[in-house]
Formats: sequence, structure tokens, C-alpha cells
Amino acid sequence: MDMEKNGCSYYENEIKWKFQGNKELNAACLSVRGILNMLLDNLDKAKCKITPSIMLGRGDPTEFPSFRTTPLAVDAVSDALRSFKFNSYAPTAGVLQARRAIAKYLSKDLSYEVLEDDVYLTAGCTQSIEIIISVLARPDANILLPRPGYPQYEARAAYEKLEVRHFDLVPENGWEVDLDSVEALADDNTVAIVIINPSNPCGNVFTYQHLKKIAETARKLGILVIADEVYGHLVVGSNPFVPMGEFASLVPVVTLGSLSKRWIVPGWRLGWIVTNDPNGLLRKTGIVESINNCLNITSDTPTFIQAAVPEILEKTNDEFFLSIINIMRQAADLLYETVKEIPCLSCPHKPEGSMTVMVKLNPSPLEDIVDDVDFCIKLAKEESVIILPGVAVGLKNWMRITFAVELVSLEDALGRLKAFCQRHAKKQ
Amino acid sequence: MDMEKNGCSYYENEIKWKFQGNKELNAACLSVRGILNMLLDNLDKAKCKITPSIMLGRGDPTEFPSFRTTPLAVDAVSDALRSFKFNSYAPTAGVLQARRAIAKYLSKDLSYEVLEDDVYLTAGCTQSIEIIISVLARPDANILLPRPGYPQYEARAAYEKLEVRHFDLVPENGWEVDLDSVEALADDNTVAIVIINPSNPCGNVFTYQHLKKIAETARKLGILVIADEVYGHLVVGSNPFVPMGEFASLVPVVTLGSLSKRWIVPGWRLGWIVTNDPNGLLRKTGIVESINNCLNITSDTPTFIQAAVPEILEKTNDEFFLSIINIMRQAADLLYETVKEIPCLSCPHKPEGSMTVMVKLNPSPLEDIVDDVDFCIKLAKEESVIILPGVAVGLKNWMRITFAVELVSLEDALGRLKAFCQRHAKKQ
Ligand SMILES: Cc1ncc(COP(=O)(O)O)c(C=O)c1O
Ligand SMILES: Cc1ncc(COP(=O)(O)O)c(C=O)c1O
Repeated sequence: MDMEKNGCSYYENEIKWKFQGNKELNAACLSVRGILNMLLDNLDKAKCKITPSIMLGRGDPTEFPSFRTTPLAVDAVSDALRSFKFNSYAPTAGVLQARRAIAKYLSKDLSYEVLEDDVYLTAGCTQSIEIIISVLARPDANILLPRPGYPQYEARAAYEKLEVRHFDLVPENGWEVDLDSVEALADDNTVAIVIINPSNPCGNVFTYQHLKKIAETARKLGILVIADEVYGHLVVGSNPFVPMGEFASLVPVVTLGSLSKRWIVPGWRLGWIVTNDPNGLLRKTGIVESINNCLNITSDTPTFIQAAVPEILEKTNDEFFLSIINIMRQAADLLYETVKEIPCLSCPHKPEGSMTVMVKLNPSPLEDIVDDVDFCIKLAKEESVIILPGVAVGLKNWMRITFAVELVSLEDALGRLKAFCQRHAKKQ
Repeated sequence: MDMEKNGCSYYENEIKWKFQGNKELNAACLSVRGILNMLLDNLDKAKCKITPSIMLGRGDPTEFPSFRTTPLAVDAVSDALRSFKFNSYAPTAGVLQARRAIAKYLSKDLSYEVLEDDVYLTAGCTQSIEIIISVLARPDANILLPRPGYPQYEARAAYEKLEVRHFDLVPENGWEVDLDSVEALADDNTVAIVIINPSNPCGNVFTYQHLKKIAETARKLGILVIADEVYGHLVVGSNPFVPMGEFASLVPVVTLGSLSKRWIVPGWRLGWIVTNDPNGLLRKTGIVESINNCLNITSDTPTFIQAAVPEILEKTNDEFFLSIINIMRQAADLLYETVKEIPCLSCPHKPEGSMTVMVKLNPSPLEDIVDDVDFCIKLAKEESVIILPGVAVGLKNWMRITFAVELVSLEDALGRLKAFCQRHAKKQ
């Protein structure tokens, strides 16, 4: 067999095969999932049999018994399925009753009404990101993304050849947006700014005042605000959750969300895109038309899951939400206090919401660990604990730790983390 | 309000808004769904209240009582959901047991074993198309698509800026591929050919011999075969269904499929991509790596639906399949015979499989109908019957009619079609 590779062709015997993988695509596809897969591959299987691995790397606590979704949601989906009425393809923008229910659900937190026509169902917030990035990715355009951020935005933008410009979230200011840097970055080809609130990865919750300032800045720049509120209402601190849509009279807002986090069903793949746009600018500028067109050629979320949305949104009782928040608040405290006891780590801002927080790594007191990636790989290997290296979210020598975890597991994991740091500390 | 549009900006009072819809995206997004939405908008609502509309425009017979999926499949999904074990994000390539079950299911029709590692779960064959087109869309590459075809391929290729070249399916030859034209079209940048079998829209089923010739041609050209077998096993004529993967020792094949059609659950969004590649060429050329990368940044099908796949594939009994095929065979006969009685229509090839067939329109004996689009819009308005105009699948003055329809409804619809043609016939 002739293994020679020549340009785009691969020779084998007499045949010149002309297809090959897509290098541009490969370069674009850096993802949390890809990095976690790499860390999982680094687990020591023999060790894991004795002390099971603990996943603090992603916003998916479904494996922990306290983070079970409400049976009401399961019944709603099962009922829709068993009715045999929702096995067909869904309408382009989603099942009407579901759109209406989401409009009503979001309106509760706003001083105006979201209409069912403003709501588009998606296969999770992941697909919401995919669609809004496609819609905005005209040639030469650029988009402003937070650093640290959620790498799905970077990946989809690279994939669509939409230029990315990063503004900073400032740890010393409770991870608020550096608005001066936003203004400095934007130019005539800037189309949008992405705001993730409650924040993944930082764990802060923006105040009303700060959100208003962001909206005013966006208005001044003439750019759209994409409000990723997938962690909406997951708040454990004192700042209440304020939806960005509250400022839609200043600047058009496209709100992204899903059931994944608040209902603890990331595997259900039910999300939405909502246009908060009382001035009708998104219609006039063709954004709405492009969203519809894009949805026409992408896969939907299963129709019967869509059909269950009204029941889920209208009937889930507050006790379910409170019990989750309660565990997460204790976990956030435990994490924050424990990190203080570990010399090479620090957490500049106590988590207030979402499921994750950023912890700073100082490798200098460590003997044989050069950076965050090295730290996370060795931690996986030696302690079977998975933490996301900060480079994955844009900050080298930071780490993103999930606190949506059963308390006993978090205690266990933090104990192992501590032991790991002690073991690797430089000998005096 | 200043309504002036200037280049990429939209002015409103003092603000210059810089975002806008994506014109390239809009141009790419021609879809069956978009065209059917347009036809549905043309229905006369008052008329539909008296004589309900009949949809012969898409491969989705779920509204008809005889086309109910098997309760076994519903139970399988419901059980997986109720176990609370599958609410988490799914692994990149899908739930392992599901991959294994699909490998086993497909191996039954092949003279070799498909391995679980060769199977990737997707959110329906729609997403399978999306992913394989992304993977192949390197700059300057081109892909060979059938005409008539399934426009999702054209849409995704346009979206990815992958050049499309069309080869003809020849009605006089039972819609076989014009292999000479395939050879003439291909050049050094051609990467793949798409074969849909059983064929949407033509309704034919390729013979073993013809499939082998296609594989030999692809081998000679050094290109990949993408085998869209979403209608696999939906056969009502005498040609048996032969999977293209049978020829994978000649040429690497990527097989696309889903539960949507054979199990009549298009709303469930469970599909797959399978690499049929005993020579390992898809790994060597990086196609497998790009598929994995692409899956890392796209939304999955819900985990609990994936988890139900083994039960569904292993336990569905033949009676369910046979009863569906039986209705479809009668419907195909009825459609074929009735079209013969309508002067302006003809059907060159009796349907043998899939859910659709191509019928030719001769507008000259009609008084006030200029072409297929005109025909379909007026038919929707006047008779509340929806048929897909041929331009949507690449052939002007043809129409694609679905025969996966309850017999009484098909009879009713064909009666209306006949009356419509008579009413519009030129007066002698
Ligand atoms: C900020 C952010 N946006 C979007 C998503 C994707 O959410 P979904 O599970 O609904 O696809 C996530 C998931 O972790 C996220 O953290
Ligand atoms: C040829 C062809 N491929 C793919 C699909 C998409 O199938 P799915 O419903 O699994 O997304 C269809 C649907 O009609 C089709 O006709």
C-alpha cells in the first residue's frame, strides 16, 4: 500500500482517493466536550474501580440523586409520547403551544409581553447558538465574545468564518464586563455582543445596573445583544437574575435558553431562541427571516418533547427549584471555603449563580506541574477527578470547577484535590 | 423613523444598526419544508373546514391511523425516560448500546459485520446530511448530487459553499443513474457522490447490479459514496433493498439512515451515520476524525431516545413492517393507475419503494396553468390537496407525490386532483 499523501489525494494501490477530512473544520471544533473526552481518556481505569471518578467538568449533574428532574416533567413528556399525536415532523419554528408557553414563562420576568411569534424552538441552547451565529455570519462581520467564555461560541464562529473579538470579564470587578474594551474593540463591521448571565464559566450574576450599561453600550455601537440565559434563575447569591430582554427598548436582544439546566435535563435537548424586540428591528433588518430560513434546514427537537413544554413550564412547583438551589448554595460555599485552604489555588469571586466558578491556579508552589492543562490531566490520572482547564474557556492557568454536585461527592473531590496539591507541592 | 437602508446598516432615529440577516444563508436555505409552508399558506381555510386538506407533499404519514408506530417503540422510549438514567448529555458519538444495536441491525443485510465504532448517532438523517456535508466541504471541493433529488443536500452544500454538480436519474431507465454523465462531471476536486435508495423522490429501488456499477464508477473516480438509506426496507415492488455498504470493499461508503421512515416516527429525530469501510480509508483520510469533531460541536438526539434504540431495533416484529408495506403497496397501485386516467399527468415508472413518486405534468392541455408551481398552488387553494412541485427537487414540470397515505385519503385526494385537472382543461 502506497501511504504517500499528495495534496488532497490519498493513494492506495492503483487508486487515487480524492476525499479527505476537513482541516478548517477540525481547527474550528475546539469544544468542552472534546477536552473532557481527552481528560476522561486519562482516567486510570483500575483506580476508578476502587475510588470512582468524580466529574466537576461540566454543567450536567444528572448522575447525582439530589439532582433528579421533577417527575412532573417526565410525566409530561411520557404523556405526549403516549398520545401518539406528536410523532410527526414539527413545524419550522416549533409546536405552537410550546412557543406560547415559553413566551408566557419569559414574560413573567419582564415588564412587557413576549409573543409566541417571538419564540423559536431548538434542539437545546447548543443549537440556538449554532443558528444565531449562522444568521449573523455575513462576510467581514465580527462578533464580540466574553473572555473567559463558553467555547461553543468560538467554535461555531470559526466554523462560520465569523471573526471573533474578545472583551474581558474582570475578576476584580466581580467578573463584570470591561465596557471600555468593548467600545475599543467594536468597529463598523461588529454585529453583536454575547452576554452569558448567570455566567458560565465565572459564576457571577450581573446586576440590573450593569446589564443596563451593557445595553446602552450596545445601543451606542448599533449592535445586537445575544443574551445566553441558559442558566436563568440558577442563582445562589444575593444578585437576583434579571433578563437582558428587560432592556430591549434600548437595544434588540436575542435571548437563548433551554430546559437543560434549571430542569436538570441536558439530555432532553429542548431550547429556544427568543427575539426581544419591541421596536421590530430584527424583522426590519432581516434577522427574523434568516432565523426561519436556517431552521428550515436544521433538525428539530423531538415533537413530543416540544409538546410537553406547556405542562413543564406551567406546573413545575417551586419546591423542586428551591431544593436544587439549596444544594447548589451549600456546594458553592463549600467549594469557595475549601479553595481558600489550598495554597496554589484562589477564587477571586464567590459563586452567585450558574453551575461553575473560575479558580485561579498558581503553579509556582507546585513541583512538577507547569500549567492548568498539566494540572487537570494529572488530577484525572491520579485522583480520578475531572476539572476543566481554563484554556478551554480562554484563560490560561485558571480552572473551571462545577459546583452543581452532590455535597458528599464535592467533599470527596475537594479532599482529593487538596491531597493532590499537597503531594505535588515543592519540598522546602 | 428613517427607513433608509444603507449597505449593511439600518438607520433608525440617531442609531445606525449594524446587524442584518444573512443573504447568502437565505439563498442557500431552499427546502422542502419552506416550500410546503408556502403551499400551506395558500390553503383556503374556509374550504378546509368543510373538506379537510390532504397532505401528499412529504414523507410523514403519522397523521393517518394506519401509520401509527408500533407501541413497542413507544414503550421503549417511555421506559428509558422513566428510568431517570438517561437525562444526561450523551457521549459524542452516541450511547454505546445504541451504536452497537444499529451496527447489528445493519449487519443483517451485509456479508460482513459493521462494528459499533463505525456508528455515530445523529438527530435524524437531516443532521446526518448536515454533518457529512460539513466534513467534505473543503475549499474547491465539489460533490455529485442526483437530479431529481432531496434538496436538503443542495441546501447544506450551498450553506457550506461546497460546489454541487448534478447527474441525471433517467426516468426511461427506471430512474437509474446516468453513469456516463457521472464520469463526465467528475474532476480532481470531486469528493463524493450521493445515492438515495430507495429513491426519494423517484420511488425506484436500485438493483444489485446497478449499485455495483455505481460503486465501480466511484472507485474509478476515487470518490466516496454517500448512501442515503433513510427509506431502507420500504419496498413495495420486486427489487429487494440492497444496502450500498455491500460494495464497501470496492469503495468506501458512508451510510445515512434513521428511524423516521420505517418506524413512522419522523418527529423522534433519531438517525445515524455509518462508515462502511473495511479498508480503513475513511480513518486514513481523516474523514472519521472530522465526523467526531463536528459531532462535538452539534446538538445530539435526546439521550433517552438513543437509549431506547436497542429495544426498538431488536424487538419490532415483522407484522408491523408488513402491515405498513401492505398499505403502501396498495396506495402505490392506486396512485399509478389513477394517474393514467388523467390526461395532463403521466408516471413513467411505477413506484417500487420509498414514500414518493415522480409524476410528469404536461401543462399544454390545461387552460390557465403554466407550470408545476402554478399547478400546486392552485391545487392547494381550490382542492386543499398539497403536492410538492418538481422544481423543489430539481425537475420543472414534474411533481412529487407521496403514496404513504391512508387509502381512503389517497382516493379522496386523487378524486380532487382529477376534478381539478378536468376543471382546468382547455375547452375544445
Ligand atoms: C453558556 C452556555 N450556553 C449554552 C449551553 C448549551 O446548553 P444546552 O444543554 O441547552 O444545549 C451551555 C451548556 O453548558 C452553556 O454553558
Ligand atoms: C432522502 C431523504 N434523506 C433524509 C431525510 C431526512 O430524514 P430524517 O427525518 O431522519 O431527518 C429525508 C426526509 O424526508 C429524505 O427524504
